[in-house]
Amino acid sequence: MVDDAGMPMPDRAAIEAAARRLSGQAVVTPLLSSSRLDARIGRRVLVKAESLQRTGSFKFRGALNTLLSLDAEVRQRGVVAFSSGNHAQGVAAAAQWLGIPATIVMPADAPAIKTANTRAYGATVVPYDRHRESREAIAERIAQEQQAALIPPFDDPRVIAGQGTVGLEIARQSQDLGCPLDAVVAPCSGGGLVGGIALALAGARPAIRVYASEPEGFDDMRRSLAAGHRVANASTAQSICDCLLAPMPGALPFAIAQRHLAGSLTVSDDDVRHAMAVAFMDLKLVLEPGGAAALAAALAGKLDDATQCIAVVVSGGNVDREMFESALDRSVD
Amino acid sequence: MVDDAGMPMPDRAAIEAAARRLSGQAVVTPLLSSSRLDARIGRRVLVKAESLQRTGSFKFRGALNTLLSLDAEVRQRGVVAFSSGNHAQGVAAAAQWLGIPATIVMPADAPAIKTANTRAYGATVVPYDRHRESREAIAERIAQEQQAALIPPFDDPRVIAGQGTVGLEIARQSQDLGCPLDAVVAPCSGGGLVGGIALALAGARPAIRVYASEPEGFDDMRRSLAAGHRVANASTAQSICDCLLAPMPGALPFAIAQRHLAGSLTVSDDDVRHAMAVAFMDLKLVLEPGGAAALAAALAGKLDDATQCIAVVVSGGNVDREMFESALDRSVD
Repeated sequence: MVDDAGMPMPDRAAIEAAARRLSGQAVVTPLLSSSRLDARIGRRVLVKAESLQRTGSFKFRGALNTLLSLDAEVRQRGVVAFSSGNHAQGVAAAAQWLGIPATIVMPADAPAIKTANTRAYGATVVPYDRHRESREAIAERIAQEQQAALIPPFDDPRVIAGQGTVGLEIARQSQDLGCPLDAVVAPCSGGGLVGGIALALAGARPAIRVYASEPEGFDDMRRSLAAGHRVANASTAQSICDCLLAPMPGALPFAIAQRHLAGSLTVSDDDVRHAMAVAFMDLKLVLEPGGAAALAAALAGKLDDATQCIAVVVSGGNVDREMFESALDRSVD
Repeated sequence: MVDDAGMPMPDRAAIEAAARRLSGQAVVTPLLSSSRLDARIGRRVLVKAESLQRTGSFKFRGALNTLLSLDAEVRQRGVVAFSSGNHAQGVAAAAQWLGIPATIVMPADAPAIKTANTRAYGATVVPYDRHRESREAIAERIAQEQQAALIPPFDDPRVIAGQGTVGLEIARQSQDLGCPLDAVVAPCSGGGLVGGIALALAGARPAIRVYASEPEGFDDMRRSLAAGHRVANASTAQSICDCLLAPMPGALPFAIAQRHLAGSLTVSDDDVRHAMAVAFMDLKLVLEPGGAAALAAALAGKLDDATQCIAVVVSGGNVDREMFESALDRSVD
């Protein structure tokens, strides 16, 4: 169990402040629906398309909110981040927009599209070996050398507040659609996105249950909630969900999850491929494997029948062609 | 030259009335952007994602507006339409929503996804041979037999007004993004979409140039504008853009085009495949070939350099897997 002392818990006001900072910069992504998808899942399903966010994932929200929260002097020295790819692009694009240098520590085996895009946003990419080196240690050394600010991927109140703006939008958009939500499901790696959404929706009346969705072998949030303290995944675990491979929940997201999550749903790689194929057919969306994890949970029947109207967050679309085509191999009527 | 006497020209008020009818029913699709796409095209490019509209194309707008404009008594007897696929789905879904029967005359070689979806929306599909039979004649016979209302795909003021709501949304959304538009490009088959958009934007100050985009071999709008009267495509022409194969512009869309279009841009099948691959990479959107024609025109440098901020309509995403994968064969950096 890791101590989270000293880290302030973000609150609804912090999420609303983030929404004001992001206004006009982040895309207010659409909340889509499809009668064919509703028929597949047997209830009304609203799809929050964060794959259409700038940089192709929700990570731009937390990254930009954090950069805009830094003192101008600190910000000018530049930023450093470690990421398997989506946080990398989020930080790189936010830094490029603010005109400051960014260095990103990325696994050497990250999807090519993620590394190429991070470089295209003007960042310096420092590759590391996922199995032998500590990305945290490398990033901290670079931050110290360059006197740059380290932007953590999830264990940070500014990052969580930024991601929580997804929850504010879901609340407003589902109301506009006349669909009172029973439940929201969002993919979970370190827990920044689902934690931020849970905080944003915590005051809703009637209550909305918020679930994480995790790949098999990386169900650390589910097991941590059961254990009452944070537990790690086996270092040998494998999944196609390259954006959901954090070794354990962040301290702050876990504290939020203990108070506000209804649970975590586990999905197989095959569930995820099926969800990617359904998104292609019914929604015309390109999703990456991890980005489809919440939709996969809904399609695989992981929610109880009492939920009548749900929202699923499709969190990213940065996928190489080969992986995308392998998902379309799944036949879908 | 075909006479268009007797058909009332839709006006801005008709488009605004359509927007009120569609409010809460049609998706207000997002106007997306990507710094990578801007860099490719060398100017700011806003992408109106009608592929995310209900039924996967803009056609739902015109279909629903027309059905809602019918007398209740007429409507109850049902509707008939002929379509290569997107209008079919639009009419079928709108009819299903209103609880009325729909019969759709579709080419036997339409993409499987379009025929399957039309049936899934509850419509009766009547296949015909594109090279030997007249879809208009078949549809008119069925309409007479069933005393049902024929819903034309483009040559109708109610259909054009419905499609024109895309233009109203582009005007408002581009203003919100602080991007004053020089030009808008939209795919063109019979001309209902681009005509409706041109009408919606006709009063804009400063003026916005509206262009059609057509596949090689189906550049009937371009040639008709040059000739000053409607001319047809060669019956032997071929294109992968299955939704843009109308034999000639509609009478009403052509009359609008003569007054309000800046021109029509022609794209090759290869331009279209490239645009589909770029949409996959930069926008995370699944586009069908014809749906990508306007983006293809912008990517292929068909607009003059004076345009600094443009909007392109990506009009549909109903594509079979094989065609989509063949487009991804185009390598894109």
